[in-house]
Amino acid sequence: MFKAKVKAEVIKNIIDIASPLVTEAKFNITPKGISLRAVDPAHVAMVDVDVKASSFEEYKADEMEMGIDLDKLGGIMKLANANDTVSLEYDEDTNKLIIRIGNLVRKMGLLDTAGMPDPKIPNLNLPAKITIKASELFQGVRASEAVSDHISLTATKDSFELFAEGDTDVVNLKLPKDLLLELNTPEKCRSLFSIDYFSNMVKPVKGEEPITMHLGNDNPIKLEFDFTEKNGHAVYLLAPRIESE
Amino acid sequence: MFKAKVKAEVIKNIIDIASPLVTEAKFNITPKGISLRAVDPAHVAMVDVDVKASSFEEYKADEMEMGIDLDKLGGIMKLANANDTVSLEYDEDTNKLIIRIGNLVRKMGLLDTAGMPDPKIPNLNLPAKITIKASELFQGVRASEAVSDHISLTATKDSFELFAEGDTDVVNLKLPKDLLLELNTPEKCRSLFSIDYFSNMVKPVKGEEPITMHLGNDNPIKLEFDFTEKNGHAVYLLAPRIESE
Amino acid sequence: MFKAKVKAEVIKNIIDIASPLVTEAKFNITPKGISLRAVDPAHVAMVDVDVKASSFEEYKADEMEMGIDLDKLGGIMKLANANDTVSLEYDEDTNKLIIRIGNLVRKMGLLDTAGMPDPKIPNLNLPAKITIKASELFQGVRASEAVSDHISLTATKDSFELFAEGDTDVVNLKLPKDLLLELNTPEKCRSLFSIDYFSNMVKPVKGEEPITMHLGNDNPIKLEFDFTEKNGHAVYLLAPRIESE
Repeated sequence: MFKAKVKAEVIKNIIDIASPLVTEAKFNITPKGISLRAVDPAHVAMVDVDVKASSFEEYKADEMEMGIDLDKLGGIMKLANANDTVSLEYDEDTNKLIIRIGNLVRKMGLLDTAGMPDPKIPNLNLPAKITIKASELFQGVRASEAVSDHISLTATKDSFELFAEGDTDVVNLKLPKDLLLELNTPEKCRSLFSIDYFSNMVKPVKGEEPITMHLGNDNPIKLEFDFTEKNGHAVYLLAPRIESE
Repeated sequence: MFKAKVKAEVIKNIIDIASPLVTEAKFNITPKGISLRAVDPAHVAMVDVDVKASSFEEYKADEMEMGIDLDKLGGIMKLANANDTVSLEYDEDTNKLIIRIGNLVRKMGLLDTAGMPDPKIPNLNLPAKITIKASELFQGVRASEAVSDHISLTATKDSFELFAEGDTDVVNLKLPKDLLLELNTPEKCRSLFSIDYFSNMVKPVKGEEPITMHLGNDNPIKLEFDFTEKNGHAVYLLAPRIESE
Repeated sequence: MFKAKVKAEVIKNIIDIASPLVTEAKFNITPKGISLRAVDPAHVAMVDVDVKASSFEEYKADEMEMGIDLDKLGGIMKLANANDTVSLEYDEDTNKLIIRIGNLVRKMGLLDTAGMPDPKIPNLNLPAKITIKASELFQGVRASEAVSDHISLTATKDSFELFAEGDTDVVNLKLPKDLLLELNTPEKCRSLFSIDYFSNMVKPVKGEEPITMHLGNDNPIKLEFDFTEKNGHAVYLLAPRIESE
């Protein structure tokens, strides 16, 4: 059983966060809320999104799974404005999700979740924690895209640094501790990442909202942020690139 | 003779209404106003637009015809803002339409109207009449486009219903009488239509403006609406699709 | 040595003005300001842009040259809002331009200026001078693009006229002296130009800003305008088209 009412924006957020990595996903429904965990086809990145029942205007659910085509659900959400309330209901008899937007009733066929994996979040040793405004990070990422296909992130006790280098051009965003929302690391940490992937993980976060990064040495990065007035939480993991030199 | 001044918006409206069906059209000019009637190349749909002389700031005309390339006239209207007054004058000597926008003079060659038909509006028995806000109808149409290439419209004494069904997905917009501006039918009427055509006929109507549909059983639909403060009137006819089952 | 601070908008202006003609250009730096002079690959048009040191918030420079990839510099300027201050500094050791936008540091490799010509502005006898609002001229140019690939410009003692003629269509913008900001000519002057080139030269000038044209008989046109509160000045020269009739 699953029956809920929610602002279209919340569903749009979930889709914006997951769709850079996967086109289909398994939504895990519990009485406490909805979550989704998926790995991209190249096994380079993982996304874990969690929206609490308190994000919903109404919410009633047993434990269940729904296999969802994210493009299709995204298209349906475009029929609503961000602030419109949409109603969602699982129809057991037909295995469809019934979506109501205003007077419109949209029944969406669900995908078989049998083949969809349940990725485990690996245990990682990521000693550095950096919290930064999304807009600041995004400017550095955008600048880097024009210069290289990978980017290094470095945290020291005093600063966080983003660095990308091409044949002739260089991008460097070095932020001292007092320009960051938080910086905490017992040692210098540095890892290298694909800009394409990293850029997709920063884009869903709007303007001045904070993003928190957990960084290690030649280790994956864990990037997390809240949404929907902190009732939604997203975590990305991204594998490091091995430096060829 | 034809000489007139009018807000660019009125001409833009005529083009927006006719151009989904035809790229060239014959404008029928009379002392009472301008009208245009055309059938699409596949003979599935007809458009009939009529703009009264009272829509114009100045209007002087004898009976005549002008063959117009709608794309070209549309491009010329883009040189004006919606609220700019444009002046139109037929030049008999050169068989051109002289369009003045501000200080700009644009002489547009006219097309030979000899080959352009004068389609007759067929007599139709369409007992159901439904009037609905354009935005409500458009949402149903947009939702249906993602699901199927045809849609059924049904009117009963109590409600109007739009329905589209794909392999796994369904769209249903059912409006009880009190959510419609008007609903009047002596019996249940239901016909099936191509979504592409139907969508093009709804798009020219803005936001909350009313659209009136006349519906029969496996019969064409007649869809009509006013524009330019009710001095313009448009009628579309669309042939039904035959149900294959 | 070159070190300066300036609103991003000023650099964006220089790029918008030069990039329709060339993708790479030599910036000539002097203590008085920055200038750029370039000829398009077909040798049909020349651009000469000049920005005084007074346009800059800070400015310190010796005489020097910088070879710049305009696309790349344009992309970097997109990282800043028009009103953001960017800082520019030439790094002699690496032959790079260091651009600072907020906390971001972007080092851009420079091009070898050895092969880049120093075009001379030819001496021209252009007796007619016409000053016109950019929006008025641009409307005439846009209308002409749909009709022909060349336009004639004519100045008499009483009026300025833009004229384009296609197989069936005509564009005519005739402005009497009192609708122009300035009109001064001892005789009738008329020349024919490529619309593509001419359009590109008018586009960088915004809305109601004045453009001054110097016109002769079957001679190039010199088109000039100020920008950045008159601290920047741009000149275009465009060769005439020979009339085939």
